[in-house]
Amino acid sequence: MNKVIETLLEHRSIRKFNEKQLTKEQIEIIVKSAQSASTSSFVQAYSMIGIKDPQKKKMLAKLAGDQPYVEKNGHFFLFCADLYRHECIGERANLDFSETLESTEKFMVAVIDATLAAQNAAVAAESMGLGICYIGGIRNNLNEVSQLLNLPNKVVPLFGLAVGEPDHMPEKKPRLPIKQVYFEEEYIINKEVTYSHLDEYDEMISEYYQSRTKSSRSETWSNQIEKKMSNPVRLYVKDYLKKQGFPLK
Amino acid sequence: MNKVIETLLEHRSIRKFNEKQLTKEQIEIIVKSAQSASTSSFVQAYSMIGIKDPQKKKMLAKLAGDQPYVEKNGHFFLFCADLYRHECIGERANLDFSETLESTEKFMVAVIDATLAAQNAAVAAESMGLGICYIGGIRNNLNEVSQLLNLPNKVVPLFGLAVGEPDHMPEKKPRLPIKQVYFEEEYIINKEVTYSHLDEYDEMISEYYQSRTKSSRSETWSNQIEKKMSNPVRLYVKDYLKKQGFPLK
Repeated sequence: MNKVIETLLEHRSIRKFNEKQLTKEQIEIIVKSAQSASTSSFVQAYSMIGIKDPQKKKMLAKLAGDQPYVEKNGHFFLFCADLYRHECIGERANLDFSETLESTEKFMVAVIDATLAAQNAAVAAESMGLGICYIGGIRNNLNEVSQLLNLPNKVVPLFGLAVGEPDHMPEKKPRLPIKQVYFEEEYIINKEVTYSHLDEYDEMISEYYQSRTKSSRSETWSNQIEKKMSNPVRLYVKDYLKKQGFPLK
Repeated sequence: MNKVIETLLEHRSIRKFNEKQLTKEQIEIIVKSAQSASTSSFVQAYSMIGIKDPQKKKMLAKLAGDQPYVEKNGHFFLFCADLYRHECIGERANLDFSETLESTEKFMVAVIDATLAAQNAAVAAESMGLGICYIGGIRNNLNEVSQLLNLPNKVVPLFGLAVGEPDHMPEKKPRLPIKQVYFEEEYIINKEVTYSHLDEYDEMISEYYQSRTKSSRSETWSNQIEKKMSNPVRLYVKDYLKKQGFPLK
């Protein structure tokens, strides 16, 4: 067990930060770490936007579903899938890239590139003693977020990353047992096995919720998924993407 | 600069491994590190498949575009977006999740979850002195890969991760200058600025290619992007996703 793996295994999402702002140097290390991640065929199809302006953070927090830690943190990053500069290269060279840029494949490449970079940013921040929380809530209002941050065509915000000095230390929630997410040689399709796996994990999660010191409750993972998945959200995303230049052809 | 950030900044993709196989313990540490990454609303919407079988690796290498390092490495992971177990939870509870599971939003969640996990796996492997290479090439033939690995509906392979002891040490290619990928407060839309940024980076890349010890060539980043984007690939992905239960509604 080395320092790096210790950092990875110690991850928990931090939802309460003190307001000490990140230094310019810290931000630079985080951005450089993000950029060091792999990128599909070297396309580097992503951008980051750092937001410090208190008014803007307040608005983002509102747009993301009134999460106070979007406003109160040491720095807020927005990670975007970005094929804008590739489109510019095409324009300058008088080449038609539209079939490539409008494909589902290329959108996936940009999402994957941005996410690899983001996780490096998260790990770098945590290695410096900072806490992080991914903010998927910004996808509640992508039109408004895009307008607020002046995003051009072919740039799509995927999630935020709130970073700062932790002001609490939540417990770590147990993940799915390894055998349920890691298969060897092939996937196992067997409903009986899946159901018994779910039972096993449901019991673990229920025990965790009952034993934890704060806000003890009794709920299984299946219960959570049932609630979440019965309630479709963000169904406008397809239309937003089309408007933003990603018809997912 | 701590150990973790050093590991992140030292990343380079390894495309030649010796054939020493990963131990069971190494695989377990990598999988656990992957699982420690953040997951959107705790949905854990991904799976990993580890492939050791030489015949299967040979076939995957062929499907991924004849890359020898897909066959010859210390271990091969396939990372999949996975909403199969969520679908099973719905079936068991007699609830209709289809609107959620078929949405573009939920597919993005699964892609992001899988990718966050993968990057933790990559970092964990590199921290143990191993090398890694992401294999997007498996998206050349998703139907065949899915059949080979017995993937059910709602499971989509995103990329492979070849891991092993490096048998070469390539140079690090310079990434885009920070100011071109990291904005403050808002995106800068100005073609003149973008073009002059591209010129600056093109010069960096061209110098890098000319100065590097192996396979020196003269090419800019814009040249590379022009070639790549003029040649649309994997346009079948949209149809594949639909067939696999992701109509991206």
